[in-house]
Amino acid sequence: MRQRYKPWAKEKLQNNPYFCIQEPAKHKGAWSEVFGNDNPIHIEVGTGKGQFINGMAQQNPDINYIGIELADRVIVTALDRLLESNLPNVKLLNVNAMELPDIFAEGEVSRVYLNFSDPWPKTRHEKRRLTYKTFLDLYKGILPEHGEIHFKTDNRGLFEYSLVSFSHYGMKLNYVSLDLHNSDFEGNVMTEYEQKFSAKGNPIYRCEAAF
Amino acid sequence: MRQRYKPWAKEKLQNNPYFCIQEPAKHKGAWSEVFGNDNPIHIEVGTGKGQFINGMAQQNPDINYIGIELADRVIVTALDRLLESNLPNVKLLNVNAMELPDIFAEGEVSRVYLNFSDPWPKTRHEKRRLTYKTFLDLYKGILPEHGEIHFKTDNRGLFEYSLVSFSHYGMKLNYVSLDLHNSDFEGNVMTEYEQKFSAKGNPIYRCEAAF
Ligand SMILES: C[S@@+](CC[C@H](N)C(=O)[O-])C[C@H]1O[C@@H](n2cnc3c(N)ncnc32)[C@H](O)[C@@H]1O
Ligand SMILES: C[S@@+](CC[C@H](N)C(=O)[O-])C[C@H]1O[C@@H](n2cnc3c(N)ncnc32)[C@H](O)[C@@H]1O
Repeated sequence: MRQRYKPWAKEKLQNNPYFCIQEPAKHKGAWSEVFGNDNPIHIEVGTGKGQFINGMAQQNPDINYIGIELADRVIVTALDRLLESNLPNVKLLNVNAMELPDIFAEGEVSRVYLNFSDPWPKTRHEKRRLTYKTFLDLYKGILPEHGEIHFKTDNRGLFEYSLVSFSHYGMKLNYVSLDLHNSDFEGNVMTEYEQKFSAKGNPIYRCEAAF
Repeated sequence: MRQRYKPWAKEKLQNNPYFCIQEPAKHKGAWSEVFGNDNPIHIEVGTGKGQFINGMAQQNPDINYIGIELADRVIVTALDRLLESNLPNVKLLNVNAMELPDIFAEGEVSRVYLNFSDPWPKTRHEKRRLTYKTFLDLYKGILPEHGEIHFKTDNRGLFEYSLVSFSHYGMKLNYVSLDLHNSDFEGNVMTEYEQKFSAKGNPIYRCEAAF
């Protein structure tokens, strides 16, 4: 996601701690206090500009959402969206997914969303893919037994790879669509990338995989 | 596969017992005797007109192939192909896949191919799909431990269903391609249906799943 350099982004995020939680590791095991209720918590890893997480939170007020995004210059747009929608059930974390075990206790997260993750097509970059086994370890560590990853992408290579990776990890595929927008899946919320790439005519792939 | 009624088909198959093995259950546990060697045996279930099995046998002389096809009026074309190619490493069986356990001993078959199996798209016909769990039971019973099914189709619904079915059965996906003809897979042998549907621009899906 190529973006202009935004030196003010970090500061803006810090100045909005209600939406963009600072020092998230302090809340490990106590995220229900942050939201003020015991609703299930779903996270999106690589949330980008936050269209998905904002739309999902609007659609499902009884779920708490946390968007996790490495790039401050990108997540700052997600913050703008939240300042607009003012939803009580979305928070943002400007951290690397590698930090998940420091931020969430075992079973504290009920579902992990991965949307249009960076494909890293070269074999020597396999370890960077968010569906590589070391990342699956991280998700497994914060989900309950049989917790699920819901994954969407238009990238054929990454989707093929991920189905095999989930399967080799011992996960079960509970749902697969190879053309989401021409399937009977209901309530789909589009991400920015989904909007862009489906407009080009790319089919959108989607699966649900359970540990 | 709609075909003209061919009353002479059954007779022609019976008159060519070298290629179309009669009373196959008699060879259970002794198929190496039929081929006259100990090479691995790969079967194709629903072999149709036999283009795949014939091409594979030509490409891999050290593998023995058996094409299994219910419809006599269809498999008779596969027989014509064999009468032409005269390959020593292909046999045909005009039987229903349900009979597999009567025909092969445990571990006697090294691989199962399913190509463009009938999709049976209606949910109430799920049990007829060749990747439904009762069929997986049959394949498992004749394959060795970790034996594989190699499956190709252009039918999106059937492929989506089959990935989930394999996974729920506890099988591991070792390979997935969502566009075989634009992948780096080598040595692909096209089936009749593959030729027809890829010419229409349909992507061909392929996977390898291991018990
Ligand atoms: C291709 S974008 C997709 C954005 C959004 N999910 C969408 O579908 O429109 C992938 C995003 O993942 C973020 N990302 C990549 N690796 C990450 C990591 N380890 N932790 C957090 N975010 C990450 C990138 O910064 C980028 O914004
Ligand atoms: C759609 S055709 C595909 C033929 C060929 N594999 C191809 O790709 O061109 C499916 C074939 O499977 C056969 N078939 C369906 N169920 C079967 C069963 N239970 N046992 C054996 N053959 C079966 C049908 O008769 C039909 O010829």
